[in-house]
Amino acid sequence: MASGEGQGGERPVVDFRTEPARYRHWKLSVDGPIATLAMDVSEDGGLAPGYELKLNSYDLGVDIELADAIQRLRFEHPEVRAVILTSGKERVFCAGANIRMLGQSSHGWKVNFCKFTNETRNGIEDATEHSRQAYLAVVNGPCAGGGYELALAADRIVMADDGNTSVALPEVPLLAVLPGTGGLTRLVDKRHVRRDRADFFCTLEEGIRGKRAVEWGLVDEVVPRSRLEETARQRAEELAARSDRPADARGVALTPIERTIEGDVVRYRHVECRIDRARSRAEIVVRGPEASPPADAATAQAQGAAYWPLAMGRELDDCILHLRTNEEQLGLWVLRTEGAADLVDAHDRLLAAGSDHWFLREVALFLKRTLKRLDVTSRSIFALVEPGSCFTGTLLELLLASDRSYMLAGARDGDDRPAATLRLTTMNFGPYPMPNGLTRLASRFLDEPGRVDDLKGRIGQDLDAAAAEAAGLVTFAPDDIDWDDEVRIALEERAAFSADALTGMEASLRFGGPETLETKIFGRLTAWQNWIFQRPNAVGPKGALQRYGTGQRGEFDRRRV
Amino acid sequence: MASGEGQGGERPVVDFRTEPARYRHWKLSVDGPIATLAMDVSEDGGLAPGYELKLNSYDLGVDIELADAIQRLRFEHPEVRAVILTSGKERVFCAGANIRMLGQSSHGWKVNFCKFTNETRNGIEDATEHSRQAYLAVVNGPCAGGGYELALAADRIVMADDGNTSVALPEVPLLAVLPGTGGLTRLVDKRHVRRDRADFFCTLEEGIRGKRAVEWGLVDEVVPRSRLEETARQRAEELAARSDRPADARGVALTPIERTIEGDVVRYRHVECRIDRARSRAEIVVRGPEASPPADAATAQAQGAAYWPLAMGRELDDCILHLRTNEEQLGLWVLRTEGAADLVDAHDRLLAAGSDHWFLREVALFLKRTLKRLDVTSRSIFALVEPGSCFTGTLLELLLASDRSYMLAGARDGDDRPAATLRLTTMNFGPYPMPNGLTRLASRFLDEPGRVDDLKGRIGQDLDAAAAEAAGLVTFAPDDIDWDDEVRIALEERAAFSADALTGMEASLRFGGPETLETKIFGRLTAWQNWIFQRPNAVGPKGALQRYGTGQRGEFDRRRV
Repeated sequence: MASGEGQGGERPVVDFRTEPARYRHWKLSVDGPIATLAMDVSEDGGLAPGYELKLNSYDLGVDIELADAIQRLRFEHPEVRAVILTSGKERVFCAGANIRMLGQSSHGWKVNFCKFTNETRNGIEDATEHSRQAYLAVVNGPCAGGGYELALAADRIVMADDGNTSVALPEVPLLAVLPGTGGLTRLVDKRHVRRDRADFFCTLEEGIRGKRAVEWGLVDEVVPRSRLEETARQRAEELAARSDRPADARGVALTPIERTIEGDVVRYRHVECRIDRARSRAEIVVRGPEASPPADAATAQAQGAAYWPLAMGRELDDCILHLRTNEEQLGLWVLRTEGAADLVDAHDRLLAAGSDHWFLREVALFLKRTLKRLDVTSRSIFALVEPGSCFTGTLLELLLASDRSYMLAGARDGDDRPAATLRLTTMNFGPYPMPNGLTRLASRFLDEPGRVDDLKGRIGQDLDAAAAEAAGLVTFAPDDIDWDDEVRIALEERAAFSADALTGMEASLRFGGPETLETKIFGRLTAWQNWIFQRPNAVGPKGALQRYGTGQRGEFDRRRV
Repeated sequence: MASGEGQGGERPVVDFRTEPARYRHWKLSVDGPIATLAMDVSEDGGLAPGYELKLNSYDLGVDIELADAIQRLRFEHPEVRAVILTSGKERVFCAGANIRMLGQSSHGWKVNFCKFTNETRNGIEDATEHSRQAYLAVVNGPCAGGGYELALAADRIVMADDGNTSVALPEVPLLAVLPGTGGLTRLVDKRHVRRDRADFFCTLEEGIRGKRAVEWGLVDEVVPRSRLEETARQRAEELAARSDRPADARGVALTPIERTIEGDVVRYRHVECRIDRARSRAEIVVRGPEASPPADAATAQAQGAAYWPLAMGRELDDCILHLRTNEEQLGLWVLRTEGAADLVDAHDRLLAAGSDHWFLREVALFLKRTLKRLDVTSRSIFALVEPGSCFTGTLLELLLASDRSYMLAGARDGDDRPAATLRLTTMNFGPYPMPNGLTRLASRFLDEPGRVDDLKGRIGQDLDAAAAEAAGLVTFAPDDIDWDDEVRIALEERAAFSADALTGMEASLRFGGPETLETKIFGRLTAWQNWIFQRPNAVGPKGALQRYGTGQRGEFDRRRV
C-alpha cells in the first residue's frame, strides 16, 4: 500500500476474489436457519506491511472477506434466515479500522477503503431488508469506532452488560476524524439517537455501556454475559421467524471468477476492459448472453454461477472494484455493450417474472448492488452506443448510470451491421433503484415523472437514435460524419479536467431528488470525511491520526473553517 | 484579507451593517409594485486590496450589499411584489465570484464567503416563497459561474437572445472547483435539468445561449434584446399579480444596528458577547424584552425596528456574522438568555396570532433565517440554562439549535433567584423550520414524533430541570453541587478537540431526517467544495485557481480519489 500522497505505483494489486477456505479473519458457521459470522482477525494478516491488526481491528483485506461472506450467505445458504455477527475473540468485539494502516495510507487509499467498507455495510442492510436474511450484532466486548459502525449496520444490537463491554465512536476525540463509515448518519437517521445525545456520545473516548446505552438507543438490549449466548440465539430465532427464505432449497455455489490480466487488458468471460493509460481511460465492454435464458427459475438455479445475469454481474462487480482500487489514474470509464437485444430481453423477462423465487431475487439484488457501485464510483462514466451494441434492459442501466451518453445515429459507413438501437424492459422500471431510492429513469426525469410512464408503454420497442434522443434517453446522437470527432473531443476534454473537481461535480449531479441513508453516507458524511482527511489537524505531521500511538496528542490549528 | 492558510490576524474586520446610501455595487429602484435591483459593481470597490472587481464579479462586500438590499425590500417596501434582478452594466450580467480574490484568500475565508453567499441566495428564494416578493432574473449579458448561480436563485429567468448573452457554469473546466454556491444542486434539484445535460453544461466554458438554454431548462425564456425590457416588465407584473403583499402599508425602516466593540466585549442593546480568547470561546447572552408587547400588529409596525423580536433578531444576526467572519479562533459559542418568560411568551403570542399581517410575518421570517444561520454555523454551540435565564418560545429555539445543553437543577447556593425553567410557546411548533424543513423539535424527536404532539399540550407550562430532562428538551441537568465542574469540563474538552473534526461531526448530526435543496447545498455540495478547496489541483501552486489569468493552464494530478 502506498504510504504517502506522492508515492504511487508501489502498492500491491488488490484482489477482491476470495472464498471461505482462504479466510484469515472470519469464521463462518451455519446451524440450520441461523448462521454465525465471527470476526477473529489475524494480527499478522494485514494486506500490507507496517501494521498489526490488533484487537480485531481491520483493514481492506478483512473487509473483503466480510463482503465475500455476506454474498455467499445469500447465495449458498438459502436456508439461513438470520445471521449473528459477533466476535470470535474473548475480550474484544472490534476496535474499528486499524489506525496505523490509516496513518500510513495515501489520501486516495483511505477514501477508497471507506467507500468499500460503506458498501459492505449497506450490503448487510440490503440482505436484512431484501434477502430476508436479517443481521443481529452480538457485542461481546469493547466495540469502538468502525466496530460499532459494523454493529450499526445490523437490524438489532444485543450487548453484554459487563464492566468491560461498551459501544463507542471515539474518532473525533482520539483521531480528529469522523466515524465516517456510516456512524454519524446511522446514529441519527437509522437509530434516531437524539442529536444532543449523539453529540455527547461522539466526543466520549470511553463510550457508553449498560442501561444508558439502551436508553439512548445506541443498542437494543443489554444482557448479563452469562445469558448473552442464549439471548442471541433467541433473538436470532425471532428474526428468522419473520423470513420468507426457503428451508429446503439448494444453494448456488459462487465458483471462482475467472479473470486474466495481460498487459493492459483485463478479461473475463462476459466483460472485457482495455486500459488506455496514455489517455487515462478504461474501455469496458459488457457482453450480452450467448443463449436463450433457462426455461424457468429452477433451471436458472441449476445453472448456478454460470447463469448469465449472475456471471456477468459478478464479473462487472469485480472489474469495478479492481479499477477503483488498482487503477486510480484512469479517470474516465467508457462503457460499451455487445450482443443481441432479444436475448437480454428474454433473460430480463425471466428475472422479472421470477422475483418471488429466492435465487432470481438474489440475482436481481446482486445486479442492483453492482449498478449502485457505479453510481458512487468517483470516475467519469460515458456510455457509447454503436452498431452491434446491446443496451437493452439490464444492460441499458449501464447507460442510464453514466454521466453522459453518445449514440451513433444510423449505420456506420462501411459497416454492414444495422444502426444501433436501445430497448427498455420491465427491469428498467423498479428492480434496480439507485442509492436515492429512485430508478435511474425516475432520477433522469425528475421534472417530468409522466415521461417514465410514457416509456413504460414503449417496453420492448427498438428505439433508434432519433427516437432515443427524443425520449431523453441519450445525451447526444451524432451521425457517422460527426461521430469520430465529437466523441474523441468529448473523451479527451474529460480526461483533461481536474480529477477532484469532476469527483465533486459528479457526486452532486448524479443524485437529484430525495436523499436516503445511503446517499447521506456517500454524500454528506463521506464528503466531510474526505475534507477532514486532507486537514493538517488529522493528517499533518502533528495531526491526531499521525500521532496516534506515540503517546503524544495531536496539536491543532484552532481556527474554524 | 488573509492571503494564505498560515497568515491570519491581518485581515480587516468585516462589518455586515450597511444601507443603500452607502452601496457601491448595487442600484435599487422602486416603481410601485416592482423593484429593480441592478448589479453595477465598482471595480475598485473590493473589500481588500489585490484584485479588481471586473465584469461585475463580486466579493463578500458586494454580497453584503445584496443581502442588505433583499432585507430592506422585504421590510421597507411592503408594496413591492416582484423584484427584477439584473445588471446595470451594458455588456455583462455577472462574471461570478472574483477569481483573484478567491486565489488570494485563505481556506477559511473562501469557505465562509461561500456560506454567506449561499445564505443570501436562499434568502432570495425565501422572499419569493414566503414574503411573496418574487424575484425575476433578467439576464442582459454574459452570466457565468456565481452570476448564473445568482440567477438560479430567482423564481424565473428571462435571457436576452443575442450572440453575446449566455449562461455558463465554467468552474470545473476553468478553475478546477465546483459551482458551489448552489449551482450544481439548483440545476438538478430546482430546475430539474437532466443529469447528463447538466454534466455537459458544467464542462462547457462558453456556456449555452438561445433556444437550447430554454430547451434544457437552464432559463425560462429568451427574447430579442429589443424586447427584453418590455418582457421583463410583463413577467414581473405577472409575478406581482400573484402576491398578497399590501399595496398601501407603510414600510418599516431598518435603522442602523447599534453596536460597540470594547476590548473583548461586543455589545448590542439585547445581545452581548464576551470573548474568552484563552479558552477559544464566545459567551453570548440574549436578553428578553423589557416590556409587554404592543397591543396589536399595527402598533408593532409603528414600533418599527425597535420592536423587540426584530431588534433582538437583527442584533443576533449581526453577532453571528461578526463572529463567524472575524473571530474564527472561537470554536465554541456558549448561549445564555436573560429575562422574563412571561414577556417573551406574550411577545410570541402576538407574533403567532399576527402571521397574516405583513410586518409580523416578516419578523417571524427574519427570526427563522437567523436561527438557520446558527444551524449551519461551523462552531460548537452549547446552551446553558441557569437561574435568571429565559429560554421561552422564540428564545428556546436557541437551545434547540444547540449541539448540547446543560440545565441547572434547582436553585444555586447563595443565589435567591428561583430555579431555571423552560417554556414552550406555539412559536416552537412551526414558524421556525430548520433548513431540513422540520421544526427543531421534530428534528429532535425523529424517533418519536408523538412526543412533539405531547409537548404541544404543555405549551405555557414552566418546566423545571427534571421536567425538561424527562421531556427530552435538555441534554443534562446537573445540580448545584455538580454544575461547575461538569460544565467547565464539558467546555474545556470541547475546545480541545480538532476544529475540523467537530465541523464535520456537527454538520452530520444536526441534520437528521429529510434533506432539502438547502441542506443539500450546505451538506453535500459545500462539503465537496471544501474538499476541493484543499486539493492541489485547485489551490496548489500549479492548480487552476492559482494559475487563472496567468495564461497557463493548471497542471493536474490525474489520480481519482
